Amino acid sequence: MKKKNILYFQSGGPTAVINASLAGLVLSALKSPSIGEIYGARYGIEGVLDGDFTNLRGLSENDLNLLTQTPGMYLGSSRKNLPEDLSSPLYEKIKEKLLSFEIDCVFVNGGNDSMLTAAKLFRSFSLHDIPISVIGIPKTIDNDLVGFDHTLGYASAALHTVSLTKSIAIDGFSYKEGKIQIVETMGRDTGWLAASTDLLEEPYHPDLILVPELPIDHKEFLNELKGIYEKKKRALVVLSEGINHNAPKEKDPFGHMNFEGAAYEWSALIRKALGLKSRVSVLSSPMRSDPVLASQVDIDEALRASEAALSFFLDGKKGVMPAISRISNNPYRVEFHPVSLDSVGGKILYMPKEYLKDHHSFSEGFRDYLRPLLRKRTLFTDGCGVFMSLKR
Amino acid sequence: MKKKNILYFQSGGPTAVINASLAGLVLSALKSPSIGEIYGARYGIEGVLDGDFTNLRGLSENDLNLLTQTPGMYLGSSRKNLPEDLSSPLYEKIKEKLLSFEIDCVFVNGGNDSMLTAAKLFRSFSLHDIPISVIGIPKTIDNDLVGFDHTLGYASAALHTVSLTKSIAIDGFSYKEGKIQIVETMGRDTGWLAASTDLLEEPYHPDLILVPELPIDHKEFLNELKGIYEKKKRALVVLSEGINHNAPKEKDPFGHMNFEGAAYEWSALIRKALGLKSRVSVLSSPMRSDPVLASQVDIDEALRASEAALSFFLDGKKGVMPAISRISNNPYRVEFHPVSLDSVGGKILYMPKEYLKDHHSFSEGFRDYLRPLLRKRTLFTDGCGVFMSLKR
Repeated sequence: MKKKNILYFQSGGPTAVINASLAGLVLSALKSPSIGEIYGARYGIEGVLDGDFTNLRGLSENDLNLLTQTPGMYLGSSRKNLPEDLSSPLYEKIKEKLLSFEIDCVFVNGGNDSMLTAAKLFRSFSLHDIPISVIGIPKTIDNDLVGFDHTLGYASAALHTVSLTKSIAIDGFSYKEGKIQIVETMGRDTGWLAASTDLLEEPYHPDLILVPELPIDHKEFLNELKGIYEKKKRALVVLSEGINHNAPKEKDPFGHMNFEGAAYEWSALIRKALGLKSRVSVLSSPMRSDPVLASQVDIDEALRASEAALSFFLDGKKGVMPAISRISNNPYRVEFHPVSLDSVGGKILYMPKEYLKDHHSFSEGFRDYLRPLLRKRTLFTDGCGVFMSLKR
Repeated sequence: MKKKNILYFQSGGPTAVINASLAGLVLSALKSPSIGEIYGARYGIEGVLDGDFTNLRGLSENDLNLLTQTPGMYLGSSRKNLPEDLSSPLYEKIKEKLLSFEIDCVFVNGGNDSMLTAAKLFRSFSLHDIPISVIGIPKTIDNDLVGFDHTLGYASAALHTVSLTKSIAIDGFSYKEGKIQIVETMGRDTGWLAASTDLLEEPYHPDLILVPELPIDHKEFLNELKGIYEKKKRALVVLSEGINHNAPKEKDPFGHMNFEGAAYEWSALIRKALGLKSRVSVLSSPMRSDPVLASQVDIDEALRASEAALSFFLDGKKGVMPAISRISNNPYRVEFHPVSLDSVGGKILYMPKEYLKDHHSFSEGFRDYLRPLLRKRTLFTDGCGVFMSLKR
């Protein structure tokens, strides 16, 4: 029987473990006698369009090990959106490239927007009866994929957030009368990342954790903060970049708002209304690219999810991706089951109501949910880490 | 002979090793048969005024070990400035408190502003022939104490900055056409911390490193950036919070500007003038409070500087502090010699001309200077660290 050729590409924003997903797929493919060529496309869907493919069988065992601890995106990404109209010549161009390389399956490693890309690809192949499978591999620090217990990349970003917020809280205890400390986390429309700081114990627990799922107006916020400051002479506010829906912002190619910098708007509000000084930390890119605080659970699951993705393809599945289900919390155990790309692509998983309590903390259920995910990796000796170079 | 009582207090902003200084002083004092009571004042000079003293002999060996890896300020700080007028009743009040506790020496652990406080204290004692010594213990992440090779706290803050900037650089390589990434570091009027990122090797080296010592106007900056972006389709800019001297800002009690948020101003400038998107990371408080990336050299030197400070007092010295001198760079060796508080207090050490080159990199001399300082500590197993609680 003819061996099957596969193509893998990375899509969307980086996470601390997306290269572990790549390593996991190659490791699983190398073990399978049914797999022929293992290609990677450079810079996502743009590399597919350009036929800019690299042979991933060329990666050594050492390379694959290094990739499991390398953040960023080894093959590079693209934020290009594919047209809704499946008769667009773009799909014809993609099809030609794939057929010329005799690709049997395309693996798309990305988040909700990327799964929309993957779903469109799959629809266009189905429409024209092209026998190429499309399989998704989950990825997003935002933790907002519907049908998932959690996403690959979230645990590492949460661990970074919790650790740095603890440092910030410690800093705040230096003064009898402190500033208002504001920490801005990523997370786009959802509060999963900001909420992770709820794991911090007193006296390091944030005084307010603001997430888009639990709106707060300026007046209520200032009242709350005033009360906290009067009592404690300091306050630590963690806010999700997406809380400030009212401010006019730029949109990305998928129509999402760019929420960055919300903390400075709230900081200005505090200064103006309460006359209190604040200090802002914008965690930003290191949340998704800090290898020092990557979660070992995240890395292990990235390897396993890719293994599952390959097995779905070998089992003849099409247009699906492995969703993570938790089958036991104590001991912590997960399994991977196929969900359709259509059910994930472009959709957003908000924090469920049972996890939300008030602006001060989340439910014990949420903390139980999060705790097992944050197991720190074994650290390498060089503080800045030893990685694969991303210079292409 | 009557044993000598000492009082220690912390002053200014936190560093990752200021509690190691405290531990070092107590460890050295416990070993000395000449030392009687070892007091710590809570919340800096305010605790001295209030007689809010705690007995540091009560710290166990385990506590002292924990303190060497605890960021923040265990005893708490104050930003209170003492009056220039030495006849102010404040000095009389301080004197009474110290005499009532039979204090023979006050150790002030702080940076340039705090050494001004220490110098004023010492002048007021001298003026009234009060036989209390004042000894400084150096501390500031800004690295701006005159007469010092480097300051305690700088190495750890630089290590944090280098590590996170590397993560940010890695993140930037994910896209063929990337954003302008802007990293804002602390450092007040000097560029020592921003400059530390010059240690990053290609392809992770910043494209522009902006420090107050090497001014750049908006036009020159935008021209440089335009050239870089046209060539690389991405750019990484590291800027010291103090570069933007023109913007109206708040002043602190010592008359210093609050520079925070400069990166957003430059980001807006880039968007407006070049139409390019940017992503800002404001490293802020974790730079000085991140225990995970503390430098082992910094911790070791904090212990040794406190030992030197105590020996200066026991040798009968007054109004001095231990400055760090490098006696050899390969192998790296330093010694501590006394400098007068007056020569340090309120003064600022800028980066010397021989370290400055252009906006792209610094001299090899600067990199040789910095490299030996950044030796990562042995990591504890818990990602978030095990510390002394700072809840007082």
